[in-house]
Amino acid sequence: MKAKGVYLKGFNQPLEIGEFDLPALKEGEVLVEILAAGVCGSDVHMWRGNDPRIKLPLILGHEGVGRALEIKGKKRDIFGQEIKKGNLLIWDRGVTCGECYFCAVKKMSFLCPYRQVYGISRDGCYATHLILFKETKIISMEEFSAHIDPAILVSASCSGATAAHSVESASIKEGDTVIIQGPGPLGIFALSLSRERGADKLIVMGTAVDKERLALSKEFGATLTLNIEEKSFEERLSLIKEITHGLGADVVIDCSGFPGAINEGIKMTAAGGTYLLPGIATPVKEVPLRFYEEVSRKNLRIQGIWVSDTSHLYQAVKMIASKRYPFEKLITHRFKLKNASEALETMESRNAIKAVLEM
Amino acid sequence: MKAKGVYLKGFNQPLEIGEFDLPALKEGEVLVEILAAGVCGSDVHMWRGNDPRIKLPLILGHEGVGRALEIKGKKRDIFGQEIKKGNLLIWDRGVTCGECYFCAVKKMSFLCPYRQVYGISRDGCYATHLILFKETKIISMEEFSAHIDPAILVSASCSGATAAHSVESASIKEGDTVIIQGPGPLGIFALSLSRERGADKLIVMGTAVDKERLALSKEFGATLTLNIEEKSFEERLSLIKEITHGLGADVVIDCSGFPGAINEGIKMTAAGGTYLLPGIATPVKEVPLRFYEEVSRKNLRIQGIWVSDTSHLYQAVKMIASKRYPFEKLITHRFKLKNASEALETMESRNAIKAVLEM
Amino acid sequence: MKAKGVYLKGFNQPLEIGEFDLPALKEGEVLVEILAAGVCGSDVHMWRGNDPRIKLPLILGHEGVGRALEIKGKKRDIFGQEIKKGNLLIWDRGVTCGECYFCAVKKMSFLCPYRQVYGISRDGCYATHLILFKETKIISMEEFSAHIDPAILVSASCSGATAAHSVESASIKEGDTVIIQGPGPLGIFALSLSRERGADKLIVMGTAVDKERLALSKEFGATLTLNIEEKSFEERLSLIKEITHGLGADVVIDCSGFPGAINEGIKMTAAGGTYLLPGIATPVKEVPLRFYEEVSRKNLRIQGIWVSDTSHLYQAVKMIASKRYPFEKLITHRFKLKNASEALETMESRNAIKAVLEM
Amino acid sequence: MKAKGVYLKGFNQPLEIGEFDLPALKEGEVLVEILAAGVCGSDVHMWRGNDPRIKLPLILGHEGVGRALEIKGKKRDIFGQEIKKGNLLIWDRGVTCGECYFCAVKKMSFLCPYRQVYGISRDGCYATHLILFKETKIISMEEFSAHIDPAILVSASCSGATAAHSVESASIKEGDTVIIQGPGPLGIFALSLSRERGADKLIVMGTAVDKERLALSKEFGATLTLNIEEKSFEERLSLIKEITHGLGADVVIDCSGFPGAINEGIKMTAAGGTYLLPGIATPVKEVPLRFYEEVSRKNLRIQGIWVSDTSHLYQAVKMIASKRYPFEKLITHRFKLKNASEALETMESRNAIKAVLEM
Repeated sequence: MKAKGVYLKGFNQPLEIGEFDLPALKEGEVLVEILAAGVCGSDVHMWRGNDPRIKLPLILGHEGVGRALEIKGKKRDIFGQEIKKGNLLIWDRGVTCGECYFCAVKKMSFLCPYRQVYGISRDGCYATHLILFKETKIISMEEFSAHIDPAILVSASCSGATAAHSVESASIKEGDTVIIQGPGPLGIFALSLSRERGADKLIVMGTAVDKERLALSKEFGATLTLNIEEKSFEERLSLIKEITHGLGADVVIDCSGFPGAINEGIKMTAAGGTYLLPGIATPVKEVPLRFYEEVSRKNLRIQGIWVSDTSHLYQAVKMIASKRYPFEKLITHRFKLKNASEALETMESRNAIKAVLEM
Repeated sequence: MKAKGVYLKGFNQPLEIGEFDLPALKEGEVLVEILAAGVCGSDVHMWRGNDPRIKLPLILGHEGVGRALEIKGKKRDIFGQEIKKGNLLIWDRGVTCGECYFCAVKKMSFLCPYRQVYGISRDGCYATHLILFKETKIISMEEFSAHIDPAILVSASCSGATAAHSVESASIKEGDTVIIQGPGPLGIFALSLSRERGADKLIVMGTAVDKERLALSKEFGATLTLNIEEKSFEERLSLIKEITHGLGADVVIDCSGFPGAINEGIKMTAAGGTYLLPGIATPVKEVPLRFYEEVSRKNLRIQGIWVSDTSHLYQAVKMIASKRYPFEKLITHRFKLKNASEALETMESRNAIKAVLEM
Repeated sequence: MKAKGVYLKGFNQPLEIGEFDLPALKEGEVLVEILAAGVCGSDVHMWRGNDPRIKLPLILGHEGVGRALEIKGKKRDIFGQEIKKGNLLIWDRGVTCGECYFCAVKKMSFLCPYRQVYGISRDGCYATHLILFKETKIISMEEFSAHIDPAILVSASCSGATAAHSVESASIKEGDTVIIQGPGPLGIFALSLSRERGADKLIVMGTAVDKERLALSKEFGATLTLNIEEKSFEERLSLIKEITHGLGADVVIDCSGFPGAINEGIKMTAAGGTYLLPGIATPVKEVPLRFYEEVSRKNLRIQGIWVSDTSHLYQAVKMIASKRYPFEKLITHRFKLKNASEALETMESRNAIKAVLEM
Repeated sequence: MKAKGVYLKGFNQPLEIGEFDLPALKEGEVLVEILAAGVCGSDVHMWRGNDPRIKLPLILGHEGVGRALEIKGKKRDIFGQEIKKGNLLIWDRGVTCGECYFCAVKKMSFLCPYRQVYGISRDGCYATHLILFKETKIISMEEFSAHIDPAILVSASCSGATAAHSVESASIKEGDTVIIQGPGPLGIFALSLSRERGADKLIVMGTAVDKERLALSKEFGATLTLNIEEKSFEERLSLIKEITHGLGADVVIDCSGFPGAINEGIKMTAAGGTYLLPGIATPVKEVPLRFYEEVSRKNLRIQGIWVSDTSHLYQAVKMIASKRYPFEKLITHRFKLKNASEALETMESRNAIKAVLEM
């Protein structure tokens, strides 16, 4: 059987559509017809050659939702139900070894050195079909909701799951103040998940180009949005202090990936608080820190966040499936597979909040 | 200066109104004019002589909200702001020593053996005035909201704070299923606080007499309510299993105080889950447990919850002040101070969800 | 190739030695020559027909240490090193699915419904050889110590790992008091692991038949041992209170499996403390609890402990390999494979602290 | 009554002995005859004018042990026992307000903005006598040990308590590898407390001037000591990787206070690990960090540690009182009160590991 995919063959070059053979399934594998593939900010980084993990040629697409077309032997989803032809599926994009120090001892499988990722270390979802190999952790959506749009669900795969990993790492308590730096898909997930943890004041910061994203943030729980080009850092810091009894935010989450955000974020974090860094997903220049004033004296925690695991995917999926937030508004652009290059450009330009390929 | 209060002089007897002298304030003390006093389920227990902690005569009322009338010297609220005449105040009903093993080493001040409680171990809020002694932890509401009804806020004091202590102890994650046994004020707070922690399915169980409470639960986040007199335990257990992929609830919280609820609650708790017991606040008969099947084999956690501390009060206050839930509907009955006995009877009969005294 | 094993064919009957064929290895499998198999208290329960998980006939033996004889393809140990012929190996006795709710979402793989256990749900280590199937998590001991006696190491498999799971669940802090009920292998591991967590006072309780075990406990860190037949419960409780400023023990761990120990253990646990139940590994009769006095009023945590995972095995292996405790003295009896029935009887009679089969 | 103390009147000037009047005790206060005052590294910083918290003139000395001479009214220690004349006492050097956001809500009283510290924000223990005001948290040593040398115990006050705060923040598990940068009193406490948490490999790094300290580290649990002037960073990193299966250390604790240690420490920390910073206790220059490579990609946690609370003091006291480590060897120099300047110089020169004043 033949399938189609778009290949990244040269950095900064348009993706090229091509055909490939689907091999015979092995025991426990599931052939999936891709219904939606998310265009993630990191796809743009990969296309631009900024992600050190990539080897060419590659079919991009680590975010995917699809329908089971064929199952070889038996395969269960996370709830133990046998996957049947026709089931709507989402899966953990990372397949981990299950038996190394990080998987089995530390229970941090996101650090597994053998982690393989569809669309990053092997061909992904910018394609009509994908074979989920045996060790893939799958959630069958039949149990959640019959009527869920694959293009909306797909963002749980990476942005949603990584945001869930971040927010889970922060010990937010009822009534806390949380600041999100960067209102992209990662930031909007981090925002709604922080609301789901009981955060009371939720402040989102972005630039002029994020105007639409900042407006949308309000619908995901933001109690205040700030355009950092309209207010100086000192003004913003002063405002944050004013609404937090002079303390600062309990938790600040960088979802921007800009190194310039780091010192600002740390300064806005209250003593005893936590600064989370899911946004730094590609190499950035060194950032100087004042350890006495900002870290030691404040008993501050700085927490790097690297990708996610199945528990985080599960949380993101549950939140989208609950329909408590208007995730349909996050998906501003839908492209056909053959227009994948255009989708990448639209994400890079920030004209889209989130773009999705529909096959 | 004279003040009025209603005294419990004999168990099961009507409370008696009386006058008492307000002594001169000492350094750091605050004289408060009580605006609202909550009538808690445990007040009914005290009145009936079921709470071993009580000595008569006593002015009941551990839940109170008031206005600062006079401050001797300086006194700060938890945010470091100096309390001024006219400030609307709520306070931690328990005053702890701050220097014992539980306060200073375990950081579980709710277990402080020197804990004094207004309305339990000393005169309380069923009165026109109360002197908050120096060590009382106070939240001045000026910072939260100018327009907050004292009668609505007051339930944060005990029901809200104890529910916050419970929910905080449970590690609820996004997407979890939580069952609340008993839809009284404690249960409704536990419900909304569980929603605030990301619980997805929220099931509340009550009896026929709780009909109104079960209906109200829907407005506080319940996704399902069950009248335990209409469905047998087996039917309810089977229903819970059905909606949880056969697992049971991640967290079950007993807010009923009925010993008969314990084995039911534990059986509905999933393996790896937590059963919380804030409801058992007065002595009950022994309950037999099947430790192999229900505790060991399920790696279950059973967690007793005893009262609360200032961090829990803070969470309850922040949630009410956010106006995200209709706490005004929780307060079904308002009585004058002189009608305090009637208020107790109304609570006991469950005609009220929550009754409040207004002075 | 032929191997030998001893079979449990009828409950309460002597085990029968027999030969079986070793099938050809599949990709990722490791053929192990068993060097030592631990005789666990639960083996005695299985033999007596008290463990509901068992189906006959079965080669018992869930604790094993062996040497790699043959590897089909490549197989890594938890540190990523390729297993070579001749490596000394210990492995997680439980093989879990890696993709269900408990494995992938809860990260409590010990609750995986598809967990298979060598010597319980499939043939085990009372044999000359064992095939470790592909998903088995293996620790190659080359990295730890060249000179480690397999018979000493083997007790890490179940007793050690389950004790590590227990102690990890208890949040012991420097200076805490810990009581161990039952000085068998599980208790002695729980004792030394509690010492390793900073426990200061370590009290071990046993019966007259445990005399030797109580004496040995002193060498594993016990600061006090008590024969419960020599002192009444009231005397023991009074003694515990006396040495803990009236508080009781921070953590009490039942390693006895006797239902009669539960109420005693809970009464000796301090307010705010934790009672752990790794010992209840087979069905026992119902135990009545006073929830108000012992659970709610004390804010007590009761935690069931079910088996263990690879992280716990790792901890037990590291502790034995450190040689900080005289685990060689735990192994009081060594039997040949053909004398396995005698080994079970010796464990049942408590003449042995721990018996091991050497092939 | 008159007492004597040594005053810091000018930075970098010799301390001057002087007399002062002891005021009449107020209710709850305890007059203590100082038996030993620790000379802490931060005393040297204060003397040199490097600690921004100090106002002159000041009697230094935040570490103290003394004997109760007089008690006004009643005062209890942390275990509820009434303090009597003659009791040997140690106390939390920081007195916190108990009612602010950090004390009452966050339970991080070490961040209390009203925290007063004997010897830093008010006169301290470089004196014959000290009045412990009412809110001071006191441990009476009668319960621990009749025969404990005050000069040995005294280091629990600051170095010990701060190390306990650090190690408690790190979630060390049985079998972990821990690196300590800087073998001063803080480092040696962090070392022994890490051993007490189950760390298996314990590596201490120091410079040539620390030769004696590195040797002593072996007696406190170090399994390896490294002189950083003898081995380049690359050699040390390579050695650490070699003994940790290529992973790095689970936890690295900077107890040196040198900004140059930070990047080295972070690079030696394993993915998923924690880097703790109790050592940075006075302002240092900015340190540049590679956030992608060292923080995000490694899911690293960087945790600032600021001072300590009573729970940490308690842990340090319990460890010293247990006599499991040779803390008597930590105290290399004892000076008379009048020779306090010489004691500071000896600490600064690192000729002493720890100097103590005896009155």
